[in-house]
Parts: sequence; structure tokens; C-alpha cells
Amino acid sequence: MHSAPLGYRFAVASAGFRKEGRADLALVVSDAPAAAAGVFTQNLFPAAPVLVGRSMLAARQTARAALINSGQANACTGDEGVRLCRATQALTAGAVGLDAEDILPASTGVIGPQLLMDRWEKAVPKLAANLGASGPEDFARAIMTTDAFPKLAAREVSLPGGTARFLGIAKGAGMICPNMATMLCVALADIEVETPAWRELLRETVATTFNRVTVDGDTSTNDTLYGLANGCSGVRAAPGLPGWDACAEALAGVLGELAYMLVKDGEGASKVAHIRVVGARSAADAELAARAVGHSQLVKTALYGRDANWGRIVAALGRSGANFDPQAARVSLCGVELFRNGQPTNSDFDALLAEPLKERDLSIDISLGDGPGEYTLLASDLTHDYVNVNADYRS
Amino acid sequence: MHSAPLGYRFAVASAGFRKEGRADLALVVSDAPAAAAGVFTQNLFPAAPVLVGRSMLAARQTARAALINSGQANACTGDEGVRLCRATQALTAGAVGLDAEDILPASTGVIGPQLLMDRWEKAVPKLAANLGASGPEDFARAIMTTDAFPKLAAREVSLPGGTARFLGIAKGAGMICPNMATMLCVALADIEVETPAWRELLRETVATTFNRVTVDGDTSTNDTLYGLANGCSGVRAAPGLPGWDACAEALAGVLGELAYMLVKDGEGASKVAHIRVVGARSAADAELAARAVGHSQLVKTALYGRDANWGRIVAALGRSGANFDPQAARVSLCGVELFRNGQPTNSDFDALLAEPLKERDLSIDISLGDGPGEYTLLASDLTHDYVNVNADYRS
Repeated sequence: MHSAPLGYRFAVASAGFRKEGRADLALVVSDAPAAAAGVFTQNLFPAAPVLVGRSMLAARQTARAALINSGQANACTGDEGVRLCRATQALTAGAVGLDAEDILPASTGVIGPQLLMDRWEKAVPKLAANLGASGPEDFARAIMTTDAFPKLAAREVSLPGGTARFLGIAKGAGMICPNMATMLCVALADIEVETPAWRELLRETVATTFNRVTVDGDTSTNDTLYGLANGCSGVRAAPGLPGWDACAEALAGVLGELAYMLVKDGEGASKVAHIRVVGARSAADAELAARAVGHSQLVKTALYGRDANWGRIVAALGRSGANFDPQAARVSLCGVELFRNGQPTNSDFDALLAEPLKERDLSIDISLGDGPGEYTLLASDLTHDYVNVNADYRS
Repeated sequence: MHSAPLGYRFAVASAGFRKEGRADLALVVSDAPAAAAGVFTQNLFPAAPVLVGRSMLAARQTARAALINSGQANACTGDEGVRLCRATQALTAGAVGLDAEDILPASTGVIGPQLLMDRWEKAVPKLAANLGASGPEDFARAIMTTDAFPKLAAREVSLPGGTARFLGIAKGAGMICPNMATMLCVALADIEVETPAWRELLRETVATTFNRVTVDGDTSTNDTLYGLANGCSGVRAAPGLPGWDACAEALAGVLGELAYMLVKDGEGASKVAHIRVVGARSAADAELAARAVGHSQLVKTALYGRDANWGRIVAALGRSGANFDPQAARVSLCGVELFRNGQPTNSDFDALLAEPLKERDLSIDISLGDGPGEYTLLASDLTHDYVNVNADYRS
């Protein structure tokens, strides 16, 4: 793992929001005001911290910190939820010597209950005392809910002005079908960059990374990605300057790696399906087709069962709503073509696929014709453990 | 159970299409030419018998029989699949003394493989010899795949001209999200009716019964409903005549009861959720909202876990694509209002719902405002057994 971007300090604390003893409160503070970007859920019921974060970023170009709790989503909590979210900012600002408006908030956990402010009041002094003593991995662990492992990715880029560093920290693992952002992610950089360019770069990168994964088709009320770029490396970056493309590539690498981790650690998941649709009449048709396959419970259980049941892929394409000529459609699984010209192409597919289907990473390649539309999607499978986790999440 | 409509004889046989010894071939023959209707899947990859059935009904007003096999779907089988489907019609026609064009075909089972004609050739003489010796329940059992129980429903209507009888036989239990028809259903009546009126009645009734259920969100390649009305009761029925509304109600009762059974016997299902959306801006908005909730893996696993996790219902509404004012949305579960004005309405909901959530039938009532749009949907839950059945279906 590369070293963290310069000029960021991390803190975690155990507040006991849902389980005693585990860290569930996380803070990252930048030494300098950082160009600040946010990408949020498109769910019509955005959580209180999403409302607060959105309005902060509409009013200002920079921020100094991100404050995240797990265990309580602060979603569907009305005006009181917003008031309590702002109270946590004020509490933390007082403890670490920042303005409340410098602290971007995010929450993850169960929808509905109001924040437990007595626990916040006890935990925030501990959080402040811990600042600088924790690292990125502690931060990643503190924001986990049903995640099996912490999710971090980093890149370094050598630019004319020096080395620039990019670090992303994210959490999964359920209600994952991001629409403009993932569940929760913080992307940190130490480049010096204008806020509008940074925001545009984040938006573009999310569209090809986090917005192309699905675990269960459910878009969260709390999806938030915050991006901070604090300039502490002294390396300037801007569209048109040498090195900008390298920065974009590094950020895409970080977010792409995290997006992959979200699916790999999807609740109960044992497989990552790499679904690639080409030849569609439009990108929208390709996306409809990819999502129908990636969300199909029957496809997902077949992948779990290592069953080369390609008919379920074809059936999902046929009901996807994508506009295409069925006779032109082709389907391959793990590199073996199975369906073409409306019929099976390979009678020996079960034997051919027995070994490949044991792998964690499986490719599903679909061609819908000779159009220009393409889309890729990463999808998890549907397993016994998914049902275990979700029939049981609150208890 | 009411007695069967007059003038129909049933037959079943064991062909060994997938398992030895169980009946997997079913035939119903009408004594007289029957007004014939068909409602078929909207999947872009219709199975061979769907293609054949559609073209038959485009060319003719009546039919004499329906021939159904389980174990092999004859879907994604190209021109050869159509040729073999027609061969099974010819084989059966020869054995029972009908024209091949009198026999409506349907298949259900695994997608991909071609029909095993040697087994058909051995089984059809047994099928013919059995004609009249089997009854509707034998027929219902022979068309089952992963179904746990046979699905029949019947109604009798007293009309001025005598008694009219309606019988429906259907199968589930996976790839159930019908779009213009269910997996397989035969609706038999002994009224004398003009074919156009009969077809129109079937279409309308399917729209409010089979098209409003979902097990797994996957629309099959083989969905087929055939309706036969043979006039053998001597009772005339037509739009405008006294008794037509009673016939329509009887048919709606038959198909509605079967639609409920499909969900109750959805693969692995332990619950039937009765989702009702009202107050939407349009019926289309109401349908989007109902389907987002009914297809949500997180809602379905919560129902299975008897978890009053209403936040998952709200999150599904928020990503449904339905156009509504989030502040106006209300959600009730089993008659207990849980969410209103953007926040929880009942802090005691877990205790209140502990007992009601043990029932098989659960109501989810959603209001999106004060618009005219309404929709109802029956949905199953998502259970360990669903994964068992589907990670393992072909093996």
C-alpha cells in the first residue's frame, strides 16, 4: 500500500452506537482547507447528513474534515435528524478546534432511529484525543457495518512538481446499487487543485466506477462520496496542465479498486461477475441489459451454484427492456460462447465450464448486435449467507 | 372444488424428460371446437411453443386441445426447436385423432436443450391411451416443475341458460414476474362465446391477476396462458347479455386464486406480501413504486426474517423512479402506520408487529399523496430455500 496523502490526520472512537467496544466513529482532518467535492445518493429519501453535506457544498468550495458514524443511518428522521446532524458537527468542531461548517458529515446503519446524542457527547472527546494516533485502516474499520473487510485503495503519481498521492476509503456491503455515489466513501488527495475541476473529476470518475456495481439492486438513502484535495504535496494539478490525465487515472484506479471491493464483499457474496455488454444500439440499451442480468436473482443464484445455466442470462436479456434484435444476441460465460443465432452453440458447455465456474471472478460477455452502445457492470452473486445477513440484520 | 367444465377430457403420461417415473406430459382435449385465446410472454426470447401457439391463434379462432410438457422449456432452441414442437403436435394429433393445428403447445423446464424426441415417441401412445382416465389434478401435477403443490381453481355461475363452469390450472414457481401471462396456465370454460369476446375477456383479466404478482422479478421465456371455451354447457355468453359480468367475475376469481397460489408457492417462499399503493400521480407511478418494493431483496429478506425493517420499504420507494413528494409518503405494515411526514410515526413498532409478522399473508400499504394512481402487487419473500432451489436447479 502506498503512503497516505500528505496533510491528513485520522481519528476513531467507540461510541457504542450498535455494538459495545468496536470503533464506530471516524474523523479525518486536513491540515489545510481542501477543495471539497461530494457525490450523493439519488434516492428520494436522502438521509439527514446527505441534506446537510449537499447544502454545505452548495455554499462553499473547501472543507477541513469528514465525520462518519456507523450503526445509525440518520435517515427518515425528519427535521430533528438534520438538527442532530448539525449538533454532531458543532460538538466535534469544538473538540478539535474547527468551524462546524468545515466538517462534512456522513452516517450509515439502520434507517429510522434518531442519533443517540448522549453517546456522541461521551465519544467525541475520545475522538478528538485520538486525532493523529489512528491511520487510514482504523478509519476504514470504524465505518464498516456488514462489511467483512476494510476497503482502502491508494495510488501515487509522479508529476513535474513532485509526487501526488490519492487514497480512497469506502464501505459496503448491502443496499448497494449506487446511483451517483456509493454507500460511503472518502477520497483524499494532496494535490493543489481548483474546486470546480476537482468536482468535475470526481463526478466523471464515479460514473465509470461506483455507479457500475450492484450487490442487491437497492440504492441506499445514505450514499455519499466526499473528495478532499488539500494541496499539501505542493503539487499543482489542473485540466490542461501536464500530469492531469495521470491524476485522473490514479483517481479512477482508486475508486475502481474500491468499487470492485464493494462487490467482492457484497453481503454473503462468493463471486464477482464482470458483465460486459457491447454492440447495443445505445449506451442506455447496454445498461438496461447489463443491469437486468446483474440484478437477476436467478442468474445470481446460478453463479453461486456454479451452474452454467446460461438460459437465465438470455431470459434476463429478453425482459430487460433493451431494444435489440434477439437473433443478433450472443452470450459467453468465462470466455466460452454459449448462445448465438437464437440457439445454443456448445453442447459440451457443462464440462467446459466446471472448472472456470469455481473461480471468484467470472466474466459474462454479451453482444446485442453491431451498435456502438457499451456498458460494464460488476455484480455479486446471491447466496445463503446473503439471506442469513439480511433476514437478521437488526437483531 | 367445483366440478370441471363439461366436455373436456384429460390425460397424463411419464416421459422421463427430467426425472423417471413422474408424470411430465399433460393433455386436455375438448369434445367440441373451443373458442381459443392465448396470452404470451413479452420476453424478447419467446420459446418455440410460444412462437407456434402465437402463430396458430393468429390464423384461427378455435382449438381442440392443449399439450404441455414439463422438464424441457424448448426455449432458445432456434428453428430446430420450432420444428420439434410441431413434430410433437403431429405425433399427438395422430395418436388421439385430431389435426395437429388443433393442439396448442406449451413447455416448461430448463432453457436450451432440444426436445428429446425418442422419449416423446414412447410416451405419446401412453398419453393417448390415458385420455379420459386422468382428471384436472393429475394434469396440474404433470405440469409442475419446482412447484410444491398443484394449482387449480374453479367457479360455477348460474346463468339464465343453465350452469357455466370455469376451471384454471397453472404452474409456478420460479422465473415469475409475468408480463401479459404467467408461466403456464390453462383456463377452461364450457360457455358458448364468440372468440373475440373471449380473447378480450382473458386479456383484461390477466392484467389484474397474473400480471400483478412477482416471485423473483424474472419474466420467463415460456409464459403462456391458453383459454378454451367449448360451449358444451349449452350456455351462451356474450358482452351485453345477462350473466356476462358474472362470467367475468368467475374468470377473475379463478385466475386471481391461481395468481395468489403462484406467489404462495414461489420458490422457497414463506410469505405473501400484499402490496397496495394509492395516491400516486398516475397508475404508472403506483406500479413503479409497488414493483420496487416487491422486487427489493432487502424487503423480501426482512419479511422472511419477520423484521419490521420499514426503512427498507422507504428506501425502495425512494429509488423506484416513481414521481412523488417524499414528504407526502406514508407506509403501513400489517395495518400499523410506520412512516409519515418524512419520519417514523411509531416508536413501539417492533412490539406491535411481532405477532402479525408471523402470519403468512402480510399487507404493505403505501400512500404517495392524494393523486388517483393505484396499483396492487402480490410478492413472495426471499428465503434460504429460494437459494437452495436455485443454486441447484439443474443438478
